[in-house]
Amino acid sequence: MSEILKRLADVIESRKPANGGDPDKSYVARLFTKGDDAILKKIGEEATETVMAAKDARASGDSSKVLYECADLWFHSMVMLAQFNLTPEDVLRELARREGLSGIEEKASRKPD
Amino acid sequence: MSEILKRLADVIESRKPANGGDPDKSYVARLFTKGDDAILKKIGEEATETVMAAKDARASGDSSKVLYECADLWFHSMVMLAQFNLTPEDVLRELARREGLSGIEEKASRKPD
Amino acid sequence: MSEILKRLADVIESRKPANGGDPDKSYVARLFTKGDDAILKKIGEEATETVMAAKDARASGDSSKVLYECADLWFHSMVMLAQFNLTPEDVLRELARREGLSGIEEKASRKPD
Amino acid sequence: MSEILKRLADVIESRKPANGGDPDKSYVARLFTKGDDAILKKIGEEATETVMAAKDARASGDSSKVLYECADLWFHSMVMLAQFNLTPEDVLRELARREGLSGIEEKASRKPD
Repeated sequence: MSEILKRLADVIESRKPANGGDPDKSYVARLFTKGDDAILKKIGEEATETVMAAKDARASGDSSKVLYECADLWFHSMVMLAQFNLTPEDVLRELARREGLSGIEEKASRKPD
Repeated sequence: MSEILKRLADVIESRKPANGGDPDKSYVARLFTKGDDAILKKIGEEATETVMAAKDARASGDSSKVLYECADLWFHSMVMLAQFNLTPEDVLRELARREGLSGIEEKASRKPD
Repeated sequence: MSEILKRLADVIESRKPANGGDPDKSYVARLFTKGDDAILKKIGEEATETVMAAKDARASGDSSKVLYECADLWFHSMVMLAQFNLTPEDVLRELARREGLSGIEEKASRKPD
Repeated sequence: MSEILKRLADVIESRKPANGGDPDKSYVARLFTKGDDAILKKIGEEATETVMAAKDARASGDSSKVLYECADLWFHSMVMLAQFNLTPEDVLRELARREGLSGIEEKASRKPD
């Protein structure tokens, strides 16, 4: 797995209250302390902000906000994964599985001999 | 960057009409052909489906649907990134930058001497 | 309650399979037949489309798409309400209750004697 | 139009800074002061919260949270409408227009002679 995803997943995991995460010091520990709904609400929020940033980027020609909001969306996705004892590695494995299996995409990606 | 993210980003890039992507054969090529709004709508849809899957997972104890929907969300995020000529590598670099900079998180992750 | 909301709520109610709604003839009957997730997914979709329409409206100066998407959002909200045996009248009653109670808003709306 | 929607729309309109709305006293005035993105972000948030509430309602059998979140969603939709100089009456008129025009729904609602 990507080194940074692994490192981030480890930091996020360490923020769980059960692992000593302190809600007074860590934003992620606060999310874990609040629980599922607080984390899921962030998924909805960050998705909306990503959509708005993309609209702005198309108007302005500056796509840096799309990058920033997408990073937020992936980060909060990783908090959600940790909340359900899943890892970004699981997601990458699922994506790899699909790439190998996906009929329509796979056929289209094959080079003719 | 993770090998699978790189490979997926390459496949997605190859689906752009300008790169020979064929909307008749590839779902991703169809998204690119439809343009921004079709892609952004998918971000909103997949975020909603992720939230619903997480609610179901909590009720059922089976988190596999969370994984599946999160993979969908990341996949469509990557299509959006490609649409704005960004890559998952850019997102990982932004996440790494934050991890290094983020005061509150960084302090909390430091081991006391 | 508004006559149109009442009429629409009645039409929606009549589309429930238990009330004779036919999925082959009615879009709403199809949503009811598919169940909760199909209806909730539409809430997420229509919210995203409303946000995109508002962004477009600001860029173009034409707000008609905002109106159209907001109507879609309210319509699908009403399907969801029906799915949970609630009515738009219940929502309006809740809004009226808040308007009467809401401290911050109420105080701000009061004219000084 | 429904009396409560009209009254609420009037209150919301009076919260615009241009109409004397005071961000220190009114939540709605604060939203108007922050502008489009703050308002649109609320649409995404409230839609997500509505979806979560519906999932909870199905699990618990108590649909009161669905009602509460739907009221929030409609309320913030009305703030957005005001931001684009639209009214709930415009939305109801659009919904009435569709009910009259919509082929599939209209046919299905007709009683056979």
